[in-house]
Parts: sequence; C-alpha cells; structure tokens
Amino acid sequence: MTFDDALARARALDDGDALAGLRGRFVLPEDLVYLDGNSLGVVADGVRDAVVAAVEDEWGTGLIRSWNDAGWITLSARCGDAVAQLVGAPPGSITVGDSTSIHLFNLMVAGLRLLPDRSVLVTDRANFPTDLYLAQSVARLCDVELVLLDPGDADALSAACDDRLALVSLSHVDYRTGVLHDMTGVTEQVHDAGGVMLWDLAHSAGVVPVDLLGCDVDLAVGCTYKYLNGGPGAPAYGFVHPRWQDQLDTPLTGWLGHASPFALDGVYRPAEGVGRLRIGSPPIVSMSALHAALQVYAEVDVAMVRAKSLSLTDLFIALVEEHLAGTGVEVVAPREHTRRGSQVCLRLAEAYGFVQALIARGVIGDFREPDLARFGFAPLYVRHVDVVAAVAAMAEVLAQGEHVLPRHRQRAAVT
Amino acid sequence: MTFDDALARARALDDGDALAGLRGRFVLPEDLVYLDGNSLGVVADGVRDAVVAAVEDEWGTGLIRSWNDAGWITLSARCGDAVAQLVGAPPGSITVGDSTSIHLFNLMVAGLRLLPDRSVLVTDRANFPTDLYLAQSVARLCDVELVLLDPGDADALSAACDDRLALVSLSHVDYRTGVLHDMTGVTEQVHDAGGVMLWDLAHSAGVVPVDLLGCDVDLAVGCTYKYLNGGPGAPAYGFVHPRWQDQLDTPLTGWLGHASPFALDGVYRPAEGVGRLRIGSPPIVSMSALHAALQVYAEVDVAMVRAKSLSLTDLFIALVEEHLAGTGVEVVAPREHTRRGSQVCLRLAEAYGFVQALIARGVIGDFREPDLARFGFAPLYVRHVDVVAAVAAMAEVLAQGEHVLPRHRQRAAVT
Repeated sequence: MTFDDALARARALDDGDALAGLRGRFVLPEDLVYLDGNSLGVVADGVRDAVVAAVEDEWGTGLIRSWNDAGWITLSARCGDAVAQLVGAPPGSITVGDSTSIHLFNLMVAGLRLLPDRSVLVTDRANFPTDLYLAQSVARLCDVELVLLDPGDADALSAACDDRLALVSLSHVDYRTGVLHDMTGVTEQVHDAGGVMLWDLAHSAGVVPVDLLGCDVDLAVGCTYKYLNGGPGAPAYGFVHPRWQDQLDTPLTGWLGHASPFALDGVYRPAEGVGRLRIGSPPIVSMSALHAALQVYAEVDVAMVRAKSLSLTDLFIALVEEHLAGTGVEVVAPREHTRRGSQVCLRLAEAYGFVQALIARGVIGDFREPDLARFGFAPLYVRHVDVVAAVAAMAEVLAQGEHVLPRHRQRAAVT
Repeated sequence: MTFDDALARARALDDGDALAGLRGRFVLPEDLVYLDGNSLGVVADGVRDAVVAAVEDEWGTGLIRSWNDAGWITLSARCGDAVAQLVGAPPGSITVGDSTSIHLFNLMVAGLRLLPDRSVLVTDRANFPTDLYLAQSVARLCDVELVLLDPGDADALSAACDDRLALVSLSHVDYRTGVLHDMTGVTEQVHDAGGVMLWDLAHSAGVVPVDLLGCDVDLAVGCTYKYLNGGPGAPAYGFVHPRWQDQLDTPLTGWLGHASPFALDGVYRPAEGVGRLRIGSPPIVSMSALHAALQVYAEVDVAMVRAKSLSLTDLFIALVEEHLAGTGVEVVAPREHTRRGSQVCLRLAEAYGFVQALIARGVIGDFREPDLARFGFAPLYVRHVDVVAAVAAMAEVLAQGEHVLPRHRQRAAVT
C-alpha cells in the first residue's frame, strides 16, 4: 500500500469515526502530529477559561471564601467521581490530589497494613521507576521483603503467591512495551493467595476500559496528565475498594484527611471512606484545569475510545512493518488486541536521534532509554491521517539519515 | 482616641510607609478589608498572565517540549531559590513541590534517619494539626517515641533534651496564638543535646525575618499560599541544610528525585543536594502562579515588611483594647515584639458568629476552634487605615449584637 493509498484509507476511517467530532474540543497546534498524549495530554476547550476563572474570580475576588463558595473543598471528590466513571469505580471511591508517587506510597503502606501477618510486597522489575523506587522505600520502612517479578517469566507471580504474600503492585499497561496486563486474572490470582492488589492505571485510564469494581481490585492509583488531559503535573488519584475504605490505615495523615479538619483536633481520626486519602491543601489552579478537561470525557464511551485506539495502533503497526521494513526498526508492542495498550514503541539503536528528527518534522513522540522511540495514540484527538503522516515522516527521516545525530542535546521527554 | 483621630493617625502612617506602593501590585476586591492573608494570600499582578501563558503557550503550543523549552523541569528549583532568599537559605537548598504535609513527612523520617541510634521525636502539643498528625504517623512508622511539649511549660523542651533526642519539629509562629518562637535559642538547645531541628515556616516566611543558615537550622518546611501569595493549595517547600543534603535519606523516593530521572534506572539513587526532595511531577499551572507571585518579593526587604507588620499589629491591639473594652473580647497575641508573629487573635465565646458578621461587613478574618477570631496582617497590601476600619466594624458588630448567630452555617476557613 503506497502512502497515497494509505491516506485514502485513513480518510475513510476518519470519515466513519464517531469520535471525530471530539478533536474540535481540543487546542492543537497546526501542522503538528502529536503522538505523545501518553506523556502529556493536550488542552481541552474550557480549560483556559476555567483556569482564568479560578484565578480571577474564585481566588482574586472570592479569596478565602472560595473554599466553600466556589467548591474548592469538594474539588478533590468531584474530580474523583469524574475519574471513577472512566475506570469502573463507584462514586465516592476515588480522591484526586498530590502525585501518583504519593498515592503509591500511601496505598502501598496502607495495603500492607491490611495484612499485618504477611510480609511480602511484589512488583514487576519493568514497572515504572517511581513505582519501583517507592516499593523499595515502602518495603524498607515496613520491614517486608520486596520481590521483583521478571516480566518475561509468566510463572513468576504464581511462585510469589503463597501465604506470605501481602501486596502486589503492578502497572496496568507497561510504559515501555505497551503490554496490557490481565487485570481480572492477576487480581483473582492474588486474591486466591489471600493478597491485596494495587494497580497503577497511568497508561490505561481513559483509553482502555477499566472495571475496578468488576475486577474486584483493592487499590489503584493513576495520573491525570496523560490521556485525561489534566495538564502538566496535574494532581493524581487514589482508589480504594468500598470494602477497605473504612479500615484503611494510611501513613500520610494530613489534616485534610481528618474526619473533621476544621475542628483542628490534636489526634488524627481519619475521614470516612476515601476522604482519608486527602493530605494537604491540593493545588486548586491545576485541579481546576483538570476538572474542566474531564468534562470532555463525561460524554465519551471508553469502549468507543478503545476501538479507535486499536484501529490507530493496527494501522500504525501495519504501515511501519511495510514502509520501514529493512531499516532495522523493530515494533515493540503486542500484536494481540487483548494485550495491547494505546502506544507502540519502535526499537532502533538511534532511537534518540530518530525522535529528535521527527520532532523537527512536526511529529512528536518520545524517547525511552536505551533504544525506544515511543508513540502514544490518544483517540480523542489523533486521527488515522495523523498515523499515515507520522509513518511517512519516519520513512523520510530514515531515508535521509536524519536520525544519526550527535547525542549532546538534553533529553526532554517525561512519561 | 476616637476612630476619627485613629484614622488620621493611620493615614499619616500610611503616607510614610515605604512599602505603600506595593499594594498596587495586587488585585484586591474593592471595599474589602482582607485580614486573612495568613490563610490565603491575594493575587499579585503578573499571576493571571503567567497562568494563561502556562496554559496557552507552554502547555497548549509547546506541549511535552515545554518541560525543557519553558523550563518546567527547573521550576521547582527556581521557585525554591526565590523562597530561599526570604528565609536566609543559600541558593540550591530549597525545593518547591507537593504540600507542606508531604515535606513534613519526608523530612521528619529523613531527620530521624540522620540519628539512627536515637529514639525520640518531639513536637508541640499546640502545633498545627497536620504537623501533629504526621508526627504521630512518623513515630509509629519509624518506631520512635513521640513527646508532645506543653506550650505553657517553658522547661518542657529542656526536659526532652537528652541523649535519646533525635528530632524536634516545631512551627516558627503558632497558628493560633501568634507566638513567634526563638529560632536561634531553640535550635541551639536542640543541637546542644545532639538532636536535629525542623522548623515549619508556614506562618513566618515573608513577614518575619528568618535566617535558616544563621540559626544553623537543619531542616525546614513551609507553605506558599499564605504570605507568599502563591494561590490556593500552591506547592510547598522543603529546606535542607547544606551539611545534610548529600546524606539525606528520604522515604518519598519519587522518580523526579532520582539522580538521573530519564535514565529510568531500576534502583533509586538520590539526586545531589536538595533535588532529592522532588517526588512526582509537580503541578505546573499552580506553580506558575507561585513563580509569578514571588517576583513581588524579589524587590522587598523582609526587615521593612517586619517593621510594618509590627506597626499594624501594634495599632490593632491598641484600638481593640480601647474600643472593644468591656465587651469581653480578649487579645490573644504576645505584646513583646520579639515574640509576636504577624497575626492577632481575639478570644470571645461567639467567635464564629463574630467572624461571620465581620465578613458580612467586608472585613475578612477567620475562625479557629473553639473561640478564636483570627486576623492576619500582610504588610505588602494591608494598610493602617484598614486596621482602623476593621476595629470600627468590630465595635459595630458587638454593639449591634450581630455576632450572636445561629451556628448552623458550615465553617469555611482554611489555615
């Protein structure tokens, strides 16, 4: 299939795309193919105005009164409920605030405390660094053994599933390989061993149907600045299954998680339910951006997003395999739909230069050490024609040798 | 002195105020006397434009590239350096991000780890709740004894200063009584006992001269949404004395605190210096507001701010004592300048109704359980004439009985 034929096919797919109208709800720089929404989503309409209103009206005029009058005090819960409907969680089971790292720490410690007679914390050696680093820290603080699974070893989790197992912490989608883990099966396996399961939804929420309640997940965390378009460093979220909410014993006992913050008691008494995941005052201006961005998702069926995501990644993989054949570029992503997230990596020795050359051509992906060029497909605003344009640019970059660059520039990408 | 005479005197003081011009740098609602800058500061000029630029240009157009191109990646350090010059800290000793609660947790655990052979954590029973709650949590996690000082007992700290003492965590200014602690003397006393000292600067930074290096302080935290005008829930900061920076062993090992975040190593290796206080991605839009707000302070001498603060609180106390005499209202604030922060509380049984009635009259303070009406004086924008107007309103409220209200409305104030 020539690029011209591919473009015609892509146009037909875009014409039939029921989500196509959503692209107009986002601010997108012209002439840019943005395949990095898995790192930082784009600005949704309404976000700018929400942020201006938060600064000018709520903060500027309302001042301290806005904690009640503008609803700042409930913003963590309201954003939490908006996220909840995207991940199969009931209202009142998610709190937004702080970073994914903080939620991970808080929920890993609290998860271990649910099973004080058990002594093993399990994660995946390929998990995102912050998940790994915090697992190391938590294991040390709580004096439990940390077991690191080898992602290539399908039996590794089974081996860890014994009566010492307390908590398993995994990412739903691997940030490098794009592998989508089997949330149902893994959670069931951990529960069969009597353990508690924590999922990091950073790379799945909003693009992969997630059913936390249906999968009986105990704890989950996620970030909102990727597919949820919350903005750079937007506050993250923590989920607690209703069965654990009122016994969850968190270590980050900030005053806003108290049952009665304004009583200013001397002794911590946790708020009912997931309100105890609040810690200090959340960054309201950033959270106002997130709240506005989440309105787009209020009208979206994630199943349709998923279908488009698979259509986009199928097309990308097919075009790469045809047009980059013989260049040494390897596709890193599962071919089976059931195991694929919403991203595809390409492996090549000159991945860093490759990404830089593509950026110069207006195609934005990111580089992941040591040899991966990563491309994310955010179906709310990425079109099939963008996929064709991206692969055409890749073929040009490789043909012209633009990817062979001096490696002196600072590396810019953020997951 | 009649209110008319007081007003004339206040006008004279304002005319001679070298900081008077700064008031024009802030957005202040008309006809409002805002004495709650110790809870939430006001919008500085430049803040709105900075936030719009962060959303429209940096995020909207720059997208992921802005981590480098717009300097997002260094924003925590740049805001940290701006705060550092207000609190006598050297450049590179403060990191901004997360909340005060998170910095407290991180630095209390790390502080205890500096002296692993010691086993006592000390704080003040009257400390702000989040400081207390996190001290309780840290003592439990680290298996050390928590000693709560009685603020009325001048010898309590001496009694705790033995060879078991590891860490003392205190607030520089008490959030209720406005008492300014003796940073030099207390830090020296703790050091003499071989302990580590952590100060919470939430209610002093920006209005009281703080000399962290001169006082040889080990660790400090503070919030930026009070006198520093960073905005609701703006990110907080952590300070580490240079002597500890490269051995500080923090529990919140987020990926951005890694020596080489983008290497995506599997094992945590802390960044040099205070960079290890970074955890997850910070909320850039909120931090952009803070960065702009801190520009006002770049031109300000905190000693002048302090002089004006004392002039404002002196006037307030004098007018309250004269005009509210016989109403049962008691001034809660040290009379000695050396022991007074930048706030004054009034104690009365109907404090909640008193604050509500004042708000209805356009004078904003806040209520603190159980019987305190709290008024903060932010000298960058509060004038002496505002003090007169506030006390005149108080006299009216009490004379009219407006403070005797049904106590059914939700309590709104946030420290």
